[in-house]
Amino acid sequence: MTSKFRHVALIGKYRVASPTGLPQDSPRQALEDIAAFLTTQGCEVIVEAETALHMGLPAQYRSLDVDALGQACDLALVMGGDGTMLGVSRHLSRYGTPLIGINQGRLGFVTDIPLDENFQPTLQAMLEGCYEEDSRPLIEARVMRGDECVFEALAMNDVVVNRGSTSGMVELRVEVDGRFVSNQRADGLIVATPTGSTAYALSVGGPLLHPSVGAWVMAPIAPHTLSNRPIVLPDQGEVMIEVVGGRDISANFDMQSLASLRHGDRIYVRRALHGIRFLHPLGWNYYATLRKKLGWNEGGT
Amino acid sequence: MTSKFRHVALIGKYRVASPTGLPQDSPRQALEDIAAFLTTQGCEVIVEAETALHMGLPAQYRSLDVDALGQACDLALVMGGDGTMLGVSRHLSRYGTPLIGINQGRLGFVTDIPLDENFQPTLQAMLEGCYEEDSRPLIEARVMRGDECVFEALAMNDVVVNRGSTSGMVELRVEVDGRFVSNQRADGLIVATPTGSTAYALSVGGPLLHPSVGAWVMAPIAPHTLSNRPIVLPDQGEVMIEVVGGRDISANFDMQSLASLRHGDRIYVRRALHGIRFLHPLGWNYYATLRKKLGWNEGGT
Amino acid sequence: MTSKFRHVALIGKYRVASPTGLPQDSPRQALEDIAAFLTTQGCEVIVEAETALHMGLPAQYRSLDVDALGQACDLALVMGGDGTMLGVSRHLSRYGTPLIGINQGRLGFVTDIPLDENFQPTLQAMLEGCYEEDSRPLIEARVMRGDECVFEALAMNDVVVNRGSTSGMVELRVEVDGRFVSNQRADGLIVATPTGSTAYALSVGGPLLHPSVGAWVMAPIAPHTLSNRPIVLPDQGEVMIEVVGGRDISANFDMQSLASLRHGDRIYVRRALHGIRFLHPLGWNYYATLRKKLGWNEGGT
Amino acid sequence: MTSKFRHVALIGKYRVASPTGLPQDSPRQALEDIAAFLTTQGCEVIVEAETALHMGLPAQYRSLDVDALGQACDLALVMGGDGTMLGVSRHLSRYGTPLIGINQGRLGFVTDIPLDENFQPTLQAMLEGCYEEDSRPLIEARVMRGDECVFEALAMNDVVVNRGSTSGMVELRVEVDGRFVSNQRADGLIVATPTGSTAYALSVGGPLLHPSVGAWVMAPIAPHTLSNRPIVLPDQGEVMIEVVGGRDISANFDMQSLASLRHGDRIYVRRALHGIRFLHPLGWNYYATLRKKLGWNEGGT
Repeated sequence: MTSKFRHVALIGKYRVASPTGLPQDSPRQALEDIAAFLTTQGCEVIVEAETALHMGLPAQYRSLDVDALGQACDLALVMGGDGTMLGVSRHLSRYGTPLIGINQGRLGFVTDIPLDENFQPTLQAMLEGCYEEDSRPLIEARVMRGDECVFEALAMNDVVVNRGSTSGMVELRVEVDGRFVSNQRADGLIVATPTGSTAYALSVGGPLLHPSVGAWVMAPIAPHTLSNRPIVLPDQGEVMIEVVGGRDISANFDMQSLASLRHGDRIYVRRALHGIRFLHPLGWNYYATLRKKLGWNEGGT
Repeated sequence: MTSKFRHVALIGKYRVASPTGLPQDSPRQALEDIAAFLTTQGCEVIVEAETALHMGLPAQYRSLDVDALGQACDLALVMGGDGTMLGVSRHLSRYGTPLIGINQGRLGFVTDIPLDENFQPTLQAMLEGCYEEDSRPLIEARVMRGDECVFEALAMNDVVVNRGSTSGMVELRVEVDGRFVSNQRADGLIVATPTGSTAYALSVGGPLLHPSVGAWVMAPIAPHTLSNRPIVLPDQGEVMIEVVGGRDISANFDMQSLASLRHGDRIYVRRALHGIRFLHPLGWNYYATLRKKLGWNEGGT
Repeated sequence: MTSKFRHVALIGKYRVASPTGLPQDSPRQALEDIAAFLTTQGCEVIVEAETALHMGLPAQYRSLDVDALGQACDLALVMGGDGTMLGVSRHLSRYGTPLIGINQGRLGFVTDIPLDENFQPTLQAMLEGCYEEDSRPLIEARVMRGDECVFEALAMNDVVVNRGSTSGMVELRVEVDGRFVSNQRADGLIVATPTGSTAYALSVGGPLLHPSVGAWVMAPIAPHTLSNRPIVLPDQGEVMIEVVGGRDISANFDMQSLASLRHGDRIYVRRALHGIRFLHPLGWNYYATLRKKLGWNEGGT
Repeated sequence: MTSKFRHVALIGKYRVASPTGLPQDSPRQALEDIAAFLTTQGCEVIVEAETALHMGLPAQYRSLDVDALGQACDLALVMGGDGTMLGVSRHLSRYGTPLIGINQGRLGFVTDIPLDENFQPTLQAMLEGCYEEDSRPLIEARVMRGDECVFEALAMNDVVVNRGSTSGMVELRVEVDGRFVSNQRADGLIVATPTGSTAYALSVGGPLLHPSVGAWVMAPIAPHTLSNRPIVLPDQGEVMIEVVGGRDISANFDMQSLASLRHGDRIYVRRALHGIRFLHPLGWNYYATLRKKLGWNEGGT
């Protein structure tokens, strides 16, 4: 039996920087091996253009940019960590292309297939249709300055409004569906998806949010008022964050940034029309991933 | 114009103890005034039986027990704090009777009408149909010992499994829809509704949960493992908590307790078929209540 | 060269229960091996009476109860985890006997010598005087009912006042050196030593406290008021906790409990005259222990 | 009876910006009234130079810059909030000049004398020697780049190393007295004095630290690893924070900033030789200030 998926995109680390600011690359050999294996399964492999450029892949594979991949392919294999997925998934969500995440190093929350000796049978089964589908909502955000939209972005993890390194607190006014919620005096404010709830929001005290809960978590960063706690909001509404005070403020959408926000700028957050479809091997389990990534029942103090 | 509601239940503090263990009573005069006012609005007032007994209300009002009130009345006025509401709402939820909460002292999260000089016009408008409706889910919980159900309860706030005062940690095994989530070694575990998210769960680090998010927050109490964080779970599934270890363990459903849980006992938590309907004055606002009760934007440090 | 220490106490798991309430024993063989090795180093081994009873140690070793060991020995080897140390150290602190902790399983914060193939050279070097000394303060606590002292205890980790499993919050009045600090409405209150700061207090949000800081951490358990945060208090003063409200309240001193506290009971906490002396292998390092036990820099999310 | 203090410095808001970045001024009339009152008490009033410039104070008062005030005066009256105190106290600490804080608006943690109708008798009593003295340690920090010291500062509240608004995490290596403590991957790291423990450090989960505890609290901001908790360190040692990774990093000492830190830069933190002496009215009480500022026992949820 052969692959249910005919046209498979292959994407390596994509515009991702390491925590120390240096770019990192996926090893060429691994990508070639994957491409060759996909071919044996009856797939046409199309390599993402930058990946092809960096890796110098053999000429037998077609190459397209990410958006074209979305239109041409019915599956995308992404090699890299959760950060790589952030970049890719925003581009592909509108096409509904499902994603499979493969990683050479430490597995992430959504990239959960290790590139080891079991890789080929695992992938083969998935291509044949044996997988678990895991759908994640995306945030659609736009920044309004007066009546003008000065920035638009999709975010898989979170929208963050925060202060600069030498400035004091920001002051933000939050509304949901036009209703005043709170003034936030803090280092910043995070609005995270369920996917993002295990990332930055978690480090400021936010809860874990199961992907099938239709909600965002809004969590202040170092809030001035101790009772200013994380709140879980329905994702059917629109969250508006207005910059009321502070200096050197920026808005960050996953890794895309808009610096130099001005007082009066408003960031609108709502659920994007399209979400992301991740495919996992059969037996995949959200809770098992949490246990593994958070070290539950595995030592602790 | 007269009241849309014909048969109105009047209920005072109902089987509620103060934090120090002493029972507290609603003042008789206030109840009588409310009853008289309702009569002028064209309502038949039916007084809850225990309330009538304690207060010695005049003979002109009928009196029924809480369940009969649910069948006979199309509105219930509850005088007391959030604690009183806990008791009443569990009984009335199955009848769909909407509730109005009135308080003489500090207002609560759901009892928000003060018994002051504006009380009569506020209530009059509500009786005429000018109100905001606020629907809250209830937890339906049962405790299984082997194949036997040894306890059943509804909870508006939360289900809590916890240790005794001189015993060590409990060990609990949690599953959601039959999938293993985690082993919890802690003082205990809370599963809270959105309504309960502002109560006990908040004090152990849980998030606020907007009532229209279809979810519970599950929060450990003093967990042994630091990465064991509160998690927001969809309320469409069934949460199962099994007692695996520890001594002197009890399960608490709002204020109803089942002591002496045994190893192997399982607590099942799911969303009750019926929720609770609270009526609030026009202009009521969930976020305004949060701001007021949590002291946001009102000083702090 | 032979041991600097002439009379060495050997103590196994001592009145310690596992988290699930079952007693656990140290293996006899391990204790015998240690005893034999100490003898080869020129030490007289004296076995703690209960340990001897449980293990049925050979007749060649003298046996004494813990207090007599304190007088007779200039060193104590304790085999077990941190919990065993709690019990032993309280007894030996008044004699100034230094302690070495040995463990077969997972190492603890203070029991840090694994019973593996390096055990003999490690211990030999320590007996010859090559060790790091680590001094820890003890809490001396007493419970006053009116003018009568109804309980006295030493605690290496913490004093905990808390509620029962089915009762509501406790209300506690705290004073330091006769000055009113706060009323605490919570599940309970912990006063922890630096040693205890890595145990229960940590799980309710308390900070880590370096052993050379002369202070206690006082941390509320599930406090009603969100601004009621852990506070670090100088250990030169006297902390007084009065039971003001609540039911089924107990005070716990490490693992010793006094149940059924009454309203008006007062728990006084001060620094004990004598601390505990732990000996560690050369190169031992407080921070390395923290890193290891808390999993810093070793994965995480 | 007249003032024990002969030469009294009078200082208004001093190089302080409001949270929104706009400078704020002390009202001239209030300063003049204070100056006149001090004169009636037999004090020579010397006005801080910038205060004099901004306020246009009458010619009868001498004016000196802050450092000269330290040499010339045996008491300093500071009018403003805690922020003003930060600026002034760093300058005066080396001279041992005690400080009295006066505020027109909301009282702070250290500025606790309201400018109301009781102001004159309160101040008169203090000038006559009836006061509580409250001594606070200062942090002495320096930034080393290779062998060169590129920045030195005193801090009453805290030293903060943190990231910029659009950059990712910083990575910091922490040592205490030359011993490796941890690598911190976070938004940043705070080392706070007991005074600073009620400010920024509190908002990231740090404990309150009593001023007589000889310690700092080191608290990570949004740490990547959940077990990376605040730690209380003895103030007798030297804390070293090395910038290992990240971009757009700055070090902040109270409100003084050093931007553009480079990898390899090291921030050394130790206790300054001189602390600050605050004078409070008789009956002043550290715990009462906490209760008031944190809203304990005053409502809450």
